[in-house]
Amino acid sequence: MSPVLYRCAVCGRTYPLQERIFRCGCGGFLELQPVSLFDKSKLKLRGRSIWRYREAFGLPDDLVQISMEEGCTPIAEKRFDGFSLQLKMDFMQPSGSFKDRGASVLVSFVSRMGIRDICEDSSGNAGAAVSAYAAAAGLKCTVFVPSYTPESKITQIRMYGAEVVRVPGTRQDANDAAISKSTSSFYASHLWHPFFVMGLQSAAFEIWEDLGETLPAAVIVPVGSGGFLEGMYLGFDSLVRFGYAKKLPKIIGVQASACAPVHIAFVNSRNECADVHTGVTVAEGIAVPRPPRARAVLTALRKSGGYTVAVEDSEILDAARSLSGAGVYVEPTSASTLAAWRKIRSEDRENALLVLTGSGLKATDTYSTFLQGGDAHRSRV
Amino acid sequence: MSPVLYRCAVCGRTYPLQERIFRCGCGGFLELQPVSLFDKSKLKLRGRSIWRYREAFGLPDDLVQISMEEGCTPIAEKRFDGFSLQLKMDFMQPSGSFKDRGASVLVSFVSRMGIRDICEDSSGNAGAAVSAYAAAAGLKCTVFVPSYTPESKITQIRMYGAEVVRVPGTRQDANDAAISKSTSSFYASHLWHPFFVMGLQSAAFEIWEDLGETLPAAVIVPVGSGGFLEGMYLGFDSLVRFGYAKKLPKIIGVQASACAPVHIAFVNSRNECADVHTGVTVAEGIAVPRPPRARAVLTALRKSGGYTVAVEDSEILDAARSLSGAGVYVEPTSASTLAAWRKIRSEDRENALLVLTGSGLKATDTYSTFLQGGDAHRSRV
Repeated sequence: MSPVLYRCAVCGRTYPLQERIFRCGCGGFLELQPVSLFDKSKLKLRGRSIWRYREAFGLPDDLVQISMEEGCTPIAEKRFDGFSLQLKMDFMQPSGSFKDRGASVLVSFVSRMGIRDICEDSSGNAGAAVSAYAAAAGLKCTVFVPSYTPESKITQIRMYGAEVVRVPGTRQDANDAAISKSTSSFYASHLWHPFFVMGLQSAAFEIWEDLGETLPAAVIVPVGSGGFLEGMYLGFDSLVRFGYAKKLPKIIGVQASACAPVHIAFVNSRNECADVHTGVTVAEGIAVPRPPRARAVLTALRKSGGYTVAVEDSEILDAARSLSGAGVYVEPTSASTLAAWRKIRSEDRENALLVLTGSGLKATDTYSTFLQGGDAHRSRV
Repeated sequence: MSPVLYRCAVCGRTYPLQERIFRCGCGGFLELQPVSLFDKSKLKLRGRSIWRYREAFGLPDDLVQISMEEGCTPIAEKRFDGFSLQLKMDFMQPSGSFKDRGASVLVSFVSRMGIRDICEDSSGNAGAAVSAYAAAAGLKCTVFVPSYTPESKITQIRMYGAEVVRVPGTRQDANDAAISKSTSSFYASHLWHPFFVMGLQSAAFEIWEDLGETLPAAVIVPVGSGGFLEGMYLGFDSLVRFGYAKKLPKIIGVQASACAPVHIAFVNSRNECADVHTGVTVAEGIAVPRPPRARAVLTALRKSGGYTVAVEDSEILDAARSLSGAGVYVEPTSASTLAAWRKIRSEDRENALLVLTGSGLKATDTYSTFLQGGDAHRSRV
């Protein structure tokens, strides 16, 4: 098989993996090509982490895995509003969110490249995940966070030994700060880097394996940068292309109404996100005003036959209450999937699979305010 | 096989499971007898949760499982101080701690009994776990917590819909409050109830399965009530008695020096805990001044050839920093295992298995103070 290359999704230029880049010289985002798939007959002999699917990540063969046994999270079945739903409990991860999938693969790759100093920007979950794997790999790590990031996430990042830089302003300002830093430190970006997305595919493979080598009809996933949606689409698509599954699930992406660039682009049949007004939301994990890989996310939505839903903070908090009232404690970003499910087309409701991306333990501040009868939305402004 | 009975560990009196009791009339704690083991040939066809070992729990056959796919947590290998250690990542659970194992089994049993209203006392993790499973089962739940319980744990319990009652004073005062309430509500006690302990056995079975049907030489586990130590011992002991494994691991129990009744009893060759002076510790999860099942815990320690270690808060916080510096973010109670490992007999060091019981996300307050250079120990007084 030919070696895996970076390929710019905008201008088509290719680069060998030896290049220390996170995006193309033209400013476009990178994809990896050609990427293979695992041989399913080998799975039964492999350990239970994302690395059981390693051939699908496009990594060099001689790579050392930086792993904390992430992934292989269970699917729980629960009833809501009279329907049976499947909950992918993807917060049951070492750092408490799905981002460990991407961080494990990206940090493994970065270490293999001989890079010893990385930076990242995050509203919290990706920063925690990248810091955790940087710690496991012995890399220096700096994380730029927007000033509204909850204390629980900042404490976690600092405990991993990473330096946290609070950036006044929006999520976008934290992003700009990380890119400025990236001349002296490699920008190990969950927003930009295709190896992060490659790791996120693993959730799609697990769903397929856990459902007896079939795929669900509809999957509902929170969309911030859209990396998880893109990664799951790539995983599902590979399974179909290689003959391991018959039909793609309809992928339904959820955004908070306060920051919904992908939703706005989708409903307006655009291929790129325009600059949108962004407000404050309890679901800070999906508040990404300018997702760099938006074109891939919009393509994935359309090719899967899916669509987007925007939800209000009040709907998200109601959904968080419904989930925890059923025993499942997740952060508002994850609860957005149940809020969205309550608004999707009726034919997609039964047996939909909701991807629960982050632990409720990451949202103590928000939920504490909410329980005290305060306005958890306003307290973030 | 004869039906499973409650049997008082102190006076020997037996009760059928239909009795709504959490302890014997004599005040002694209850054990279950006779309890069977799973047939290992059936495991490969079963789902990945604690319920794959269901025959070992001693439950009625017609029980409905209240499950959120708890258990089957991975073992990560990491190096510390030049040694290779095995970390049982038991915080990767629905509610963020190992207590989900016991809560799932106990709440399933309580629901089967037709009980609809339960109470519990906890410094946080057991309260969260029992609340979560009560929510999943649709039971009313009240949790008595000591006043020093961290906000993150209280918010979690309240989000599950349980009523939280803060009890001024010590952990023991919260315990007394729950027992007082137990005339009107069933006391679904992780401290007392043998079905909680039965569920905790599952961690031992998983370790055995994940290590290729062998057992490690030494297992280090935090001891508060000692239920986890007792449960793991029962699991390991069954595996040996039924011929599934050769030799018990040495079980090493860890307590915080500030509250070490089991340690004091063990080193003084006692079979019961005396009243001990109790101070404040960052490891609030193991601060249980009068563990009701202490006799069983002390027996388990001795029969396994193990011993106890007491650790200072400064050692616990150092260990927490070492673990998170390697990418593993756990609460101080869990970090106590690494602190203890640094003090155990040299022959037990290599390949010891450390049981990491709770997520670091449950300890934001403590770690935030610690990182700010404050005295995380003193801030709890």
